[in-house]
Amino acid sequence: MIVGKVVGSVVATRKNENLTGNKFLIVEPYKNMAGNGRIVAIDNVGAGIGENVLVATGSAARIGCNAKGSPIDAAIVGIIDDAIGLE
Amino acid sequence: MIVGKVVGSVVATRKNENLTGNKFLIVEPYKNMAGNGRIVAIDNVGAGIGENVLVATGSAARIGCNAKGSPIDAAIVGIIDDAIGLE
Amino acid sequence: MIVGKVVGSVVATRKNENLTGNKFLIVEPYKNMAGNGRIVAIDNVGAGIGENVLVATGSAARIGCNAKGSPIDAAIVGIIDDAIGLE
Amino acid sequence: MIVGKVVGSVVATRKNENLTGNKFLIVEPYKNMAGNGRIVAIDNVGAGIGENVLVATGSAARIGCNAKGSPIDAAIVGIIDDAIGLE
Amino acid sequence: MIVGKVVGSVVATRKNENLTGNKFLIVEPYKNMAGNGRIVAIDNVGAGIGENVLVATGSAARIGCNAKGSPIDAAIVGIIDDAIGLE
Repeated sequence: MIVGKVVGSVVATRKNENLTGNKFLIVEPYKNMAGNGRIVAIDNVGAGIGENVLVATGSAARIGCNAKGSPIDAAIVGIIDDAIGLE
Repeated sequence: MIVGKVVGSVVATRKNENLTGNKFLIVEPYKNMAGNGRIVAIDNVGAGIGENVLVATGSAARIGCNAKGSPIDAAIVGIIDDAIGLE
Repeated sequence: MIVGKVVGSVVATRKNENLTGNKFLIVEPYKNMAGNGRIVAIDNVGAGIGENVLVATGSAARIGCNAKGSPIDAAIVGIIDDAIGLE
Repeated sequence: MIVGKVVGSVVATRKNENLTGNKFLIVEPYKNMAGNGRIVAIDNVGAGIGENVLVATGSAARIGCNAKGSPIDAAIVGIIDDAIGLE
Repeated sequence: MIVGKVVGSVVATRKNENLTGNKFLIVEPYKNMAGNGRIVAIDNVGAGIGENVLVATGSAARIGCNAKGSPIDAAIVGIIDDAIGLE
């Protein structure tokens, strides 16, 4: 997983039918965290713009968020309350 | 997922038989988005050159697009209508 | 897998329910090891800050740590005692 | 998937038994395509040195090429005949 | 897959129980090969320090090496005897 900040969202009316009902948020990886740019993640925890979140990628996002048959490769799975050593 | 722009397409007559019937589009990741270059994605939503699209990668592309047994690792799964914070 | 050093931890009270009970540690990949930044991994072996650990990523983390249905993409699966050629 | 050029091959007599019978080709990702170096892919379509090919990676290579139980993470799944926007 | 050279090994006494019995080797990707640093791979073919090996990553390593339930994301699956175009 990585920690990132929610910096935006995207809307896609024409999309794969298994994606219906999801919110797509743009996440910027926190400085020092792995990742070479922003990603689009579905929101699994009610995150909002400006929040620091935990993002899972790959099959973990799909299978861990009850979306086994959906084309989802990234999901926000936690909202960061506190951290040691993030800086 | 990432947001990218469709910039081209490729044709492969000799190919794995499970790929038959797919359109292969070249997608350039949007500036600031993750990714270290263009990728080839199958088209799952009727995308065209010049459009901004949502691309899923890994097993999500294969399983989420009803192509469980095909050698597909990237798929265009949405067409971007609107966005906040993409710039 | 990669070798990394535990440099911190994160707390997320609001999170995917399948993540409950896990400890989320921040791991910095060892110099020369693959990886382009820190990652957040669940702790599967009782690791602590400052320890050098073995980290598995992708479906290996989820499936290999009895967390098949959880959105986990990285896990600390060993504590390094000794190494040849790590430097 | 990415487009790459076949630039060589490797031979491994001592190998995992599930790899027996495969041809291992070295593929250089096409300029502008994703990837940070050459990869070794099994040949699923009869590709030869110098040809531009379509390469699938991850579980797609293994499952999409009828090699479900083999340690294969990249496969040449098409030979490029024509392309728009590849340059 | 990638070609790499075995440059070391790590020992972890405290580890996930499904890892017991494996040898963990440090592999440095061959110049020009994909990869952004060294990785730790289990040894599936009896490789030794200094040898050039074929490494599979992701679910291929786990499933292709009869370690379906283990947190393994990289495995040495062949020893390179000969190569064309590796330089």
